[in-house]
Amino acid sequence: MKDYEKLYVTYSDVHKLVKELAGKIKATGFDPDVIVAIGSGGFIPARILKTFINRPIFAVGISYYGVDRKHRDHPQKIQWIDEVQQSLKGKKILLIDEVDDTRATLAYCVGELLKYKPEEIAILILHNKLKQKDANFPPEITKYFPGKEIKDVWIKYPWDAEDIDEQDRLAAEQRRK
Amino acid sequence: MKDYEKLYVTYSDVHKLVKELAGKIKATGFDPDVIVAIGSGGFIPARILKTFINRPIFAVGISYYGVDRKHRDHPQKIQWIDEVQQSLKGKKILLIDEVDDTRATLAYCVGELLKYKPEEIAILILHNKLKQKDANFPPEITKYFPGKEIKDVWIKYPWDAEDIDEQDRLAAEQRRK
Repeated sequence: MKDYEKLYVTYSDVHKLVKELAGKIKATGFDPDVIVAIGSGGFIPARILKTFINRPIFAVGISYYGVDRKHRDHPQKIQWIDEVQQSLKGKKILLIDEVDDTRATLAYCVGELLKYKPEEIAILILHNKLKQKDANFPPEITKYFPGKEIKDVWIKYPWDAEDIDEQDRLAAEQRRK
Repeated sequence: MKDYEKLYVTYSDVHKLVKELAGKIKATGFDPDVIVAIGSGGFIPARILKTFINRPIFAVGISYYGVDRKHRDHPQKIQWIDEVQQSLKGKKILLIDEVDDTRATLAYCVGELLKYKPEEIAILILHNKLKQKDANFPPEITKYFPGKEIKDVWIKYPWDAEDIDEQDRLAAEQRRK
């Protein structure tokens, strides 16, 4: 197995990054009506954002994997927002996920949300990996808020940690280097 | 304003509590098919739980407040799980929220989920407040996993913190006392 470079991120890092992003979004004058969180990676950033930009959160589940755990060719909905889809018409949406990696999930989600004729969709992600993307955003997307732009490393988010003390220790060690 | 006693909780506390709960659940032999997170309080515990019990998360939004920010008499759905409701039949559900306060939201949610004829519903919450409850669980609920049972204090969760360093400082101070 290739020895990937890893980036250790703490909950505190995520919390501060989301707060900073909320400030940036407010500074642009963009005032979303709803937050749409892409599950499950977007759940934690979305809930923290709600502290700084208090709007209803709708969750959507998008997966590349079936119940058989096999990888699919395309992202697939595991949960969508039927109940409220009509209410997205003319609304300003802030779409949230943890990372923009290949962009496939985000672009798919944007395409699906555009069907509801929102006024605008802005995108917030904690990290954007500067790499070749498998998909592009449509021209409707003019607001894109990445917390950090980084190279293509393996991001170790705190919620994935088996041992959170070890995660904090590794993050602190990385910071000292 | 009454000076409520406060309990400061860190992300690290939440992470460890969820890990401990996952161990307890596994020890009972309960093996859920799906996780249902009550938004927005259940989003963070649910995402952490997925690290230890890897099951699909469905999110539901329940609110006591309307878009007019006025308090309602009953919890109301702001998002539900239409797409997958059929697939909940015969399934074992693990329902997650951050706190069991008046029990109204949890009991409402359980009642709605029972309509889909799941095999079983178990409940996981970080904190149960030992107080008079406004609602009871139906007899179908036999598995209830509270991370901690506490008295009726004001729980300050980390995701609500304006300043996360201050939150960590206050939590550490409280622990020393």
